Formats: sequence, C-alpha cells, structure tokens
Amino acid sequence: MTNPVTVEVTRGALVESRHRGAIVAVDGDGKVVFSVGDIDAGVFPRSACKAMQALPLVESGAADAYGFGNKELALACSSHNGEDEHVALAASMLTKAGRSVETLECGAHWSSSQRVLIHQARTMEKPTALHNNCSGKHAGFICACCHQDIDPTGYVGYDHPLQKEIRGTMESLTGATLGHDNCGTDGCSIPTYAAPLRGLAHGFAKMATGTGLDPVRAKASRRLIEACMAEPFYVAGTDRACTALMQAAPGRIFAKTGAEGVFCAAVPEQGIAIAIKCDDGHSRAAEAMVAATLSRFFDKDSAIRNALTAMATVSMHNWNGIHVGDVRAVAALTQ
Amino acid sequence: MTNPVTVEVTRGALVESRHRGAIVAVDGDGKVVFSVGDIDAGVFPRSACKAMQALPLVESGAADAYGFGNKELALACSSHNGEDEHVALAASMLTKAGRSVETLECGAHWSSSQRVLIHQARTMEKPTALHNNCSGKHAGFICACCHQDIDPTGYVGYDHPLQKEIRGTMESLTGATLGHDNCGTDGCSIPTYAAPLRGLAHGFAKMATGTGLDPVRAKASRRLIEACMAEPFYVAGTDRACTALMQAAPGRIFAKTGAEGVFCAAVPEQGIAIAIKCDDGHSRAAEAMVAATLSRFFDKDSAIRNALTAMATVSMHNWNGIHVGDVRAVAALTQ
Repeated sequence: MTNPVTVEVTRGALVESRHRGAIVAVDGDGKVVFSVGDIDAGVFPRSACKAMQALPLVESGAADAYGFGNKELALACSSHNGEDEHVALAASMLTKAGRSVETLECGAHWSSSQRVLIHQARTMEKPTALHNNCSGKHAGFICACCHQDIDPTGYVGYDHPLQKEIRGTMESLTGATLGHDNCGTDGCSIPTYAAPLRGLAHGFAKMATGTGLDPVRAKASRRLIEACMAEPFYVAGTDRACTALMQAAPGRIFAKTGAEGVFCAAVPEQGIAIAIKCDDGHSRAAEAMVAATLSRFFDKDSAIRNALTAMATVSMHNWNGIHVGDVRAVAALTQ
Repeated sequence: MTNPVTVEVTRGALVESRHRGAIVAVDGDGKVVFSVGDIDAGVFPRSACKAMQALPLVESGAADAYGFGNKELALACSSHNGEDEHVALAASMLTKAGRSVETLECGAHWSSSQRVLIHQARTMEKPTALHNNCSGKHAGFICACCHQDIDPTGYVGYDHPLQKEIRGTMESLTGATLGHDNCGTDGCSIPTYAAPLRGLAHGFAKMATGTGLDPVRAKASRRLIEACMAEPFYVAGTDRACTALMQAAPGRIFAKTGAEGVFCAAVPEQGIAIAIKCDDGHSRAAEAMVAATLSRFFDKDSAIRNALTAMATVSMHNWNGIHVGDVRAVAALTQ
C-alpha cells in the first residue's frame, strides 16, 4: 500500500514538498489505538531501539556494579551530539569497566550538530570514537560484556554473544523473528533488524508498562525509560528533538529517534507506545509526526498538548530571518 | 496523482527508504521525450533556475562591461560551497561594480559542506554574505543593476526593477504566469515562483537550443550554459553533484540543483533539457534521478553513459567504512 502524506513543507501559500509515512500507537497488549498507513511492513529501527539494546547492561547487573545512574543509562540509550558532556561521560563509563576509547568499535565522526561541529573543529584535530553519536550505547555494550567476563572484542559482530543476547531480547519484545534475512549493518557497525512497525511499538509498550515481561526485564525497562526521561540532554543534546520532546513533558514522555526517519516513543502513564517511519527517511518529517501523534495522548488545551502541537509545525526562516514556510504535520494527525 | 517511487535506499538486502518524484525531458519545441509522474504540478525551482536569473547580467551588457569570463558567469549561476575560490571571486565581481559585501542582501551562513565548514571554523570567526551559497548570483544581480544605473538597494524585493525583469524573463522561458499567487521567498530572500516542471524543462531547452529566443537572449543563454560547463567547480564545488555531473561529460552536460529536491539539466547536443522534483525534497534522490535520466541521452556502453549510470547508484559506507547499502535510482529510469 502507499502510505499517506503525513507532513507538508510549505513555502509562501503553497506546498513545496511532501512526506509520506506510517504511524502506530499500541498498548501493552499490542492493541492498536491509532494508526496511519502500513504498520506491518518491516522497518529498520536503527537508533530508535537503543533502549532495547541497553537492556543487557541493566539486566546483567553491570549498571549496578559500575554505579551507573540516570545519566549513564540515558547515554547508553542515546544518539548524542558529541558535546563535551557526552564525550566525557562515555569515557568515564569505559573507565569503570577498565577500558578506554580503544575498545570502542563504532568508528569516529564529526558531530552532526553544526554548532557542536564548529566547536569541535576549533578545539581538536579530528574526532575519536568517543565523539560518535553511538559511543554511549557502545560503552554500555562494553560494560555489559566486561561485567559478565565476556571478551568485548568484536562485540559489534552478528555472532558475538552480546549481539545474540540483544537479538533474543528484541525478538521477545517485538514478537518478530530477527535474523540474517532481515538484518542490515547499522552506521556504528552493529546489526540492525527490520521488524514490523507494529512490533516495534509493542516492544516499547511492553517496556513502558511491564506487560508480559518477567520482573527483571520489567524493572530494567522501567529504569531505562525513566533514566531517559530524567536526563533528556544525555539522550540527544542541545536543540535536538528527542531532548525537546522529553523536556516538554518531564517524566511523562519517552522519545528516541533513529536514522532514516524512524521514531519510537512512549507515554507510560497512558500505557501506550508509538512507532513511526517516514518513508523517505527525512528526520524533519519524523519529528513533526511524533510530536503530532504524542499530542493526541494529552488533554486538550493542556500545556503539554499545546507544546507538542506547536512542535508539530516548525517555522522555517531564511538567512535573513524571514519566515519562508513551515514543516507541518497534516491536521489529521493532531485531531 | 501520486508520483511513483524513483529512488530506493537499501540496507543489506532490504529497501529501507523510498523517494517519489516527477521527471520530464523536453526538446526546444517543448515536446516531451521522457516523463515520470505529474509534470504539470507547480514546482519551486529554487536555485535550479539561477542560469535563467543570470540572463539580465549578460543581456544588459554588464558582464561584458565588467570583463566577466566563464568563471564569473558560472559563479553567477552557482550554489557554491563557500570555498575560498568562490568567496574571492564573488568579492572581485562586486569590486568591478564599485561595490562590496555590504551591498549583498542574501544573508550569511556557514558552508553546507562539512569539509569546508571545518576549514571556515578554523580560519574565521563567522561567515559573511560572501560565503552564502548564493553570493555569486547576488553579485551578478548587483552588477546587472549598477551597469544599468539602477539602484541595487532592495534588489531582492518583488517590486525591484531587477526582480521584475527576471520575472518577465522566466515567464517568457517557462510559458508560466508568475506572480504573487505562485510566489514564495527563497533562502536568499529573492522571490521564487512555482512553475510546472514541464515549463521549467522547456525554459532550459530553449536556453540550450535557442529555439524561439531572440538573438540576444539566445546568445546570452548559450554563453551562460557554456560558462557553467566550462567551469563546473564555480557552479558548486568540491564533492558536489552539479560539478561531478558536468565534469563527467565536459562541455556536453549542463546541470544545476535547487533546494528541496529539484534539478534542472540540459544536453545541448541532443537539444533537450530535463527538470526533476523529488516529492520529499531530498537531494540524494534528486541527484540519483538526474544522473539516471541524463544517462538515457548518451550511447549505450559509452564512457559518459557508464559514468552517469554509476552516479545513479551511490554506495553508503558507515563510520568504519563498511558498505551498508545504496541510494539507487530505480531501473526504469536508466533503461
């Protein structure tokens, strides 16, 4: 099926560009409470599922053994900007496990935030793996391995014990069969598995509600989601959508983006979770879609709903500061 | 109508994201020789029509009076990276007209090229209007005004004599009625008008062939297109699609991108021009679409066709250099 237009980009009085996509919101039992488009097609969650991938860090006892608090757990679930605070915390997590940047297998890249990149260019020769947006997740991986006396070497590989554990965890949460047939390689070199959007949302609804999870997983899931909600800067950073969404509703919204237009989110108090895929992979559209969809789960005229509705339309200004158009979720998403 | 998928983004063996769009190729008489999707919908050409907007610079005699060669004319048609050579040439164009950076009304921004941005961050406090990707076009505007004793103040405005002249020129070339009803404000503050894709292609086909143009416009059009083909670095810059396309077929392809997934191109020896719009505005898709469409106009198994076909599929590598997928035009475009 062809997914509907979910986001329009205007210029003056006209629509200049259009984004299509699929959206699903489910409860802990997997019951669909809202949907748009094809929610059964396989979608690579990319970084949107980092909180699932961080479960072994908590369930193994590594997080407790290394004394990790909300900031470290948020960073383990993050796609961060590579700001100084992110880099320092990733390094300190590795130090707790007796490791350093050399153990990271994520590769290095400059920050995707222009502001941070300018700072980086002026203060260092080139970025290290600690600056990789995934360094917190990878530091968490390495800590999970070291605590369990598993050699972290090659921890990004499909057949490494840690990736096997993550694969099993994600199969259990999403209800999807994950393996070579639906596996790709992520930007940071770990496996990423295409799962139905509905299954990704259900996995996060289970994490947010504990429904159907054993006590250890239910507790670890709640702890990770609460850590992200408590420390949204460590999940993304300055001027980032994940951070802004969670700051708009402190302790009430969990939200995590993934590359290629994916977003996963949860409203724990409502017992629901959301998964979104913009067909063309554009994050501006995924951001408008998730804000609009989240707004549906808060009372009309409430401050949070108004804040989310406002985030579903982003004004675009040109180099002279003139308002030239908007990126806006279509009205059907917020009504 | 819903435009078809024109570009797929793969990861492993699966398609991760999809781009839709419209494509049209026409000859000098406006006859459609190839098309995909809705070619009659209005599209903001944005920077893809800069060569049309540069016609007054040449037709007025300003380019000759100021001694402009291919490099200056290419820069007047450019969306450049803000590399040192671009900035210096824009400044020298203004100097010829007795003006300086203060007369530019395009606003300032850092380079959109990461490599150039790092260089800029290390060598200057902040960018000026000369670093704006449109500074060459604006320098050309100012030169066109000054040579004709028109006050350039407010030259970006809808009612300024220069913008009126450009509007008339574009109406004549595209056959579309352009005015407040289909006008938006571009990133550099000048008016941009939504015209049917078919009309944009026809305008460039007229420029490439001279069909139906008076001798002054025919000569100016040929001169601008030849200048861009002769100096492709000054149309865009290092690692840019416009530059690479024109370098792949020296003197045989004209190509110019615009924001929000637009591309215009011409193959003068074949008497055709092409206009492309990716629905969602993603340049990676527009670039694959234009390379694939251009390839159709060169002999099978020729070096140029092979080079263009190769450019219609871009390999994506992750931070460790591992091949993770491709951005590829669908097969129907190249066959």
